[in-house]
Amino acid sequence: MAEANRQILLDRLPGGDKLAPEHFRLTEGAAPEAGEGEVLLRTRYISLDAANRAWMQGATYRSALESGQVMSGGALAEVVRSGVGHLAPGDLVFADTGWQDYAVLPGKRLAKLPPMQPMTHLMSVYGVAGLTAYFGLLDCGQPKAGDTVVVSAAAGSVGNIVGQIARIKGCRVVGIAGGEAKGRWLTEDLGFDQALDYKAADFKRQLRELGGIDVYFDNVGGDIFEACLFAMNLHGRIACCGALSQYDGAPPPHGPRGVPGLIVTKRLTLRGFVLYDFDARREEALAALKGWVESGQLKVQEDVIEGLENTPAALIGLLAGENRGKRMIKVR
Amino acid sequence: MAEANRQILLDRLPGGDKLAPEHFRLTEGAAPEAGEGEVLLRTRYISLDAANRAWMQGATYRSALESGQVMSGGALAEVVRSGVGHLAPGDLVFADTGWQDYAVLPGKRLAKLPPMQPMTHLMSVYGVAGLTAYFGLLDCGQPKAGDTVVVSAAAGSVGNIVGQIARIKGCRVVGIAGGEAKGRWLTEDLGFDQALDYKAADFKRQLRELGGIDVYFDNVGGDIFEACLFAMNLHGRIACCGALSQYDGAPPPHGPRGVPGLIVTKRLTLRGFVLYDFDARREEALAALKGWVESGQLKVQEDVIEGLENTPAALIGLLAGENRGKRMIKVR
Repeated sequence: MAEANRQILLDRLPGGDKLAPEHFRLTEGAAPEAGEGEVLLRTRYISLDAANRAWMQGATYRSALESGQVMSGGALAEVVRSGVGHLAPGDLVFADTGWQDYAVLPGKRLAKLPPMQPMTHLMSVYGVAGLTAYFGLLDCGQPKAGDTVVVSAAAGSVGNIVGQIARIKGCRVVGIAGGEAKGRWLTEDLGFDQALDYKAADFKRQLRELGGIDVYFDNVGGDIFEACLFAMNLHGRIACCGALSQYDGAPPPHGPRGVPGLIVTKRLTLRGFVLYDFDARREEALAALKGWVESGQLKVQEDVIEGLENTPAALIGLLAGENRGKRMIKVR
Repeated sequence: MAEANRQILLDRLPGGDKLAPEHFRLTEGAAPEAGEGEVLLRTRYISLDAANRAWMQGATYRSALESGQVMSGGALAEVVRSGVGHLAPGDLVFADTGWQDYAVLPGKRLAKLPPMQPMTHLMSVYGVAGLTAYFGLLDCGQPKAGDTVVVSAAAGSVGNIVGQIARIKGCRVVGIAGGEAKGRWLTEDLGFDQALDYKAADFKRQLRELGGIDVYFDNVGGDIFEACLFAMNLHGRIACCGALSQYDGAPPPHGPRGVPGLIVTKRLTLRGFVLYDFDARREEALAALKGWVESGQLKVQEDVIEGLENTPAALIGLLAGENRGKRMIKVR
């Protein structure tokens, strides 16, 4: 008898509205079966990412989501039955299983992950978050020791690692995050030199008083991007990683002021990137990240919530900024 | 007896208004005298540049202009009396003499220019315009043979050279300029593959039909920047050279849509630059430009207007897009 497969459907697209529980629907069917060249996967941990919301807006680096489908999402998954030679039952892979207990995917593009204790690290510091922080900061940002590095969404999965790597590289690190509690966590636990609360009335003044930003790692776009643009030093670099502020709601009617005027007069370099572009250099990054974690220079912060049924609320909460570090759902 | 020195003052700053003749005033005084370490210069050709207007808006890569001062501006000038060893009467230099017959400047930063026939080439193809096109396109744009290169203000001093260099490098070259006559000039005389009229009702559709831009050389900012951003290919490069659309009038309340969202999803690189940053590589660029001019691959287009008194009208006309190639005033 086939096992039950719980699935969370994207019941309807939110359009320009804020994402809410009613956009999703829990359903249940039989677990699918793997054919030739395919692999049956059991989802262990589902990754929650602001990008999940961006996919609902339209085509990005992947095609847009449609209503009625199982909600897409990356997950750490275990091979149950394999129709390909390079994967065996029990192996772990990272795959877009979607928000469900079981998924069948073509085996060709799935790569076996190394054993890891705890396995969640495969999805935080050694997964998309850590690799994105590594390449975005070091390749796109080009920080030098002594530089002032500012990162937004600094308490998020990518941002907290960006700040810690910048500190390891000898930079002065400033994190932008909402609320004083997050700020204290960044400075007291993670070693950021300073934290700025973007909700504070004098946020822009505080940003100016930094005396000039050399590298800005942007996760948010919008007003914070604009404020940082005006605070950049000559020849500064902006690593464009995401635009979190613009995913959950109607797209903004305009972009930030100062574009392209300030890009010219300050001779800035802005570079957008997605992790896929750095596939060839994955091992280099993992070796560096492991070294820092093992020496205690890089703290791993994970935010694990139990239960597939809680995935919609966990994503909605992430978009509201309630997580610290990498948020994920423990499915089983 | 000292010679007369006609001067055009920036009588009042235009603020958010369009630049008009009444913002200037012609006056006359005695020619100044050079002291120790100084050089007395006679202005031969005054360079007209959109940047002249930008300087009235506030600090850029130089401090803002103030009302009542002689209007600033670069010029090709001849040494009349020299208080420094490396310059002698008759030598030519490029200097910010301002809009006047004579100027006294510290000799230290002035460099003797080589003899050139016609001397105006020192201010067009072998001056700021040509060097800006060279470094902006080749360094910031990184064009490869076969790339689609789009340049705005393509009939302007920098734009026409950008397009010609891109064609020399084997790119498919598309110029954006106002009006059909300019477009015909670009394609028929200068060898652009195609010209788009940004005033045409279907401009954005035409831009989309190019099938993707690899390199966009931006001279204008604003709506054209936004339209090109949406038409970029993955991994495209945008060389940010200026924001002509935003100099003559009130600064725009917002920037272009798609920033930073499209920068991320298309993995674009935007780089702002000013020519000063490439001083060390001046000779390399001049040698390349000379080779192309002498072989007939690069046509030099100059737009010379006689008479110091016509300088304000010539700048106002340039801001309205009436010039083709490098506009300058022949003073004497």
